[in-house]
Amino acid sequence: MEDKFSELARKLRPSPIRELLKLINEPDIISFAGGIPDPTLFPIDLMWEVTQQILENEGDKALQYGPSDGDIGLREEISKWLKDKEGVDIPASRILPTTASQQGLDLIGKVFINPGDYVIVGLPTYLGALAAFSAYGVQFIGIPLDDEGMQVELIPEKLKKLRRAQKRVKFVYVVPDFQNPAGVTMSLQRRKRLIEIAEKYDFLIVEDTPYRELRYSGEHVPPFIALGPKERVISLYSFSKILFPGLRVGFVIAAPNVIRKLILAKQAADLCSPVLTQFVVREILKRRDAFKRHIMRLVVRYRDKRDAMLSALMKYFHDIPGVRWTKPEGGLFLWLTFPEGLDTEKMFPKALENKVAYIIGTAFHFDGSGKNTARLNFSYPTMKQIDEGIRRLSKVVEAELRELERKKRIKLTV
Amino acid sequence: MEDKFSELARKLRPSPIRELLKLINEPDIISFAGGIPDPTLFPIDLMWEVTQQILENEGDKALQYGPSDGDIGLREEISKWLKDKEGVDIPASRILPTTASQQGLDLIGKVFINPGDYVIVGLPTYLGALAAFSAYGVQFIGIPLDDEGMQVELIPEKLKKLRRAQKRVKFVYVVPDFQNPAGVTMSLQRRKRLIEIAEKYDFLIVEDTPYRELRYSGEHVPPFIALGPKERVISLYSFSKILFPGLRVGFVIAAPNVIRKLILAKQAADLCSPVLTQFVVREILKRRDAFKRHIMRLVVRYRDKRDAMLSALMKYFHDIPGVRWTKPEGGLFLWLTFPEGLDTEKMFPKALENKVAYIIGTAFHFDGSGKNTARLNFSYPTMKQIDEGIRRLSKVVEAELRELERKKRIKLTV
Repeated sequence: MEDKFSELARKLRPSPIRELLKLINEPDIISFAGGIPDPTLFPIDLMWEVTQQILENEGDKALQYGPSDGDIGLREEISKWLKDKEGVDIPASRILPTTASQQGLDLIGKVFINPGDYVIVGLPTYLGALAAFSAYGVQFIGIPLDDEGMQVELIPEKLKKLRRAQKRVKFVYVVPDFQNPAGVTMSLQRRKRLIEIAEKYDFLIVEDTPYRELRYSGEHVPPFIALGPKERVISLYSFSKILFPGLRVGFVIAAPNVIRKLILAKQAADLCSPVLTQFVVREILKRRDAFKRHIMRLVVRYRDKRDAMLSALMKYFHDIPGVRWTKPEGGLFLWLTFPEGLDTEKMFPKALENKVAYIIGTAFHFDGSGKNTARLNFSYPTMKQIDEGIRRLSKVVEAELRELERKKRIKLTV
Repeated sequence: MEDKFSELARKLRPSPIRELLKLINEPDIISFAGGIPDPTLFPIDLMWEVTQQILENEGDKALQYGPSDGDIGLREEISKWLKDKEGVDIPASRILPTTASQQGLDLIGKVFINPGDYVIVGLPTYLGALAAFSAYGVQFIGIPLDDEGMQVELIPEKLKKLRRAQKRVKFVYVVPDFQNPAGVTMSLQRRKRLIEIAEKYDFLIVEDTPYRELRYSGEHVPPFIALGPKERVISLYSFSKILFPGLRVGFVIAAPNVIRKLILAKQAADLCSPVLTQFVVREILKRRDAFKRHIMRLVVRYRDKRDAMLSALMKYFHDIPGVRWTKPEGGLFLWLTFPEGLDTEKMFPKALENKVAYIIGTAFHFDGSGKNTARLNFSYPTMKQIDEGIRRLSKVVEAELRELERKKRIKLTV
């Protein structure tokens, strides 16, 4: 059988996250590993209300096939919502609802990537994007991040080398707001500079911004869709983090000719997204005040959790030298960097023994770097778990660093 | 921008059906064009009952992320249902729920097809499969159908030629039950023979059987999944025709190593299918008696519609020489073949003028053949519309044949 698989399928590898997540299902483990919302904050009453209304009034439409380009009512509501929150005019015709934004990534891969084409990504970056693009035989160029996001100034140098080798860069993939996994936000200056570089070197900007509504502090930074020429920017949004991941509703914004291609690719991929779930999001968007109140509530609760994690890190890690972490202004994650030599993958079993879990940083680095890093999620655990989990983690790290120190001494002695 | 699209994306073409469907939205047109269920038969009460139960008891799970390999409860219920209806033992581990069976087709394309690989399909065949596989750069080999389905005896000759050219056939794609578009069912003898040929020439059998529960007459024929070795057969099922298309729930059955690859491909394509919709299908499968009664009701109503269409064809077409049609034992479609020279695409605007619509046969032929054929759907229109629509169509066809005759005479005279 193996010989029948396509060349790209042979390269498919299980997501390291999904594999790790299987290990941490024991109830006494405090997990900072997942990237999932707190289900106690789901607006189930709102869900209940709109579902009842839809099944009563338009059940025949909600349960029938829908158009590949999505429910026009949803697209119009999204257009209004974007105007409302970002001040941008995006007509419904430039909006394509997808089976959550992961499908958007897959369709972008299908529509743009020839095997061997290059895509620029962050080091680290969202691993679902790495998986989606890899399935089309992409090559990655990695650009490190700092506290202002991707260090875009490093791009031109990388591109010059590629050009000499006659290689083609199709796009840069960025998560500009509260990046998954690093939690950092790209500054306005960097965003503007990235647009200039993209114009000069003629590649597209794919902006993936599922956490954008979840800002807990700091200043709003405009999205690429508001800053860049519309032919150059493709934006991916998701309702997974602000409503329900289980509905799988997200959307892509792009130029009309790109949207047309994406629709054709979507037609071949699943004919149409579920209609009922699109109607649910449309109806919730119509209840704009209730929707905004819900987001406010998320922001308040997740802010507390972020603050709890930052406090716990200060409390338990302040005596451990060489450990750094990002201070996210929003989103679901923060990023830990340990002293060189500490390998978070090797440390992982010990963390599990001590009933705490994280995601190893290498999972987010296509080139296998980031061994001394880890991603922590603060949206899912309770406040109490956050404190206790960080305490446990600090003990594990302390022990690991002592062990490393001991080995180093033995080596020096020998 | 065009130069940035991938090579395969440049080849993406709008589905001719979707384009035609846009033309026939006027309410006074009787449309035999769509392939959609009758929404007046949707079991909305059942939908509401299970949705209410799910939101009340497990809303947090139903609205959260789910596993890429689907809800285990749904997979177990499907396993029991398959045992119940087909007498086959398929463990849950060999079942992968998908965002309807179109996603199954896309994932199979991704996992098996290298650009240039060959796939055997019917002439005609389901055009969504043509679109899904084309997106991966496939080459098709066409095998004509007759009243017993695909004429599988013609395969070896075609394959010998390919082998000489060192080409690789990955699989045959068949819709064995009440085929879309032709309405014919593959006989047991043909199924067994196809398995022998597949074994001998070492290719897989992809069976797509969304209409299987909708048998109105004739004898049950076992599915490939019950007849063939499990390593050789991949089966696609769908709840779109027997519950609700708008839920987008289907599933793939395959050997464990194929399922593993499909799960990885699905992870990259959409992380997971909507969870709520999977729970809905699981709960309806659990209410087995109500589900069976619903299917019985569909069978009774669609049988009446099929019979109405066959009667109308007898009534209005019996005076028109050279027109043939299939007599489907189930499903949603029948297939019309007109005398050579009549081009259903050229006739289409005249049909619209006369307020009746069908799908042109060439849409289902990858090689552009089938110009004198058309697909008619009988599940969606009412009984009255079926009679009146076939009457209108007969007038259009009569006029078209007269016109062809006249042109022929002029040609002969000149």
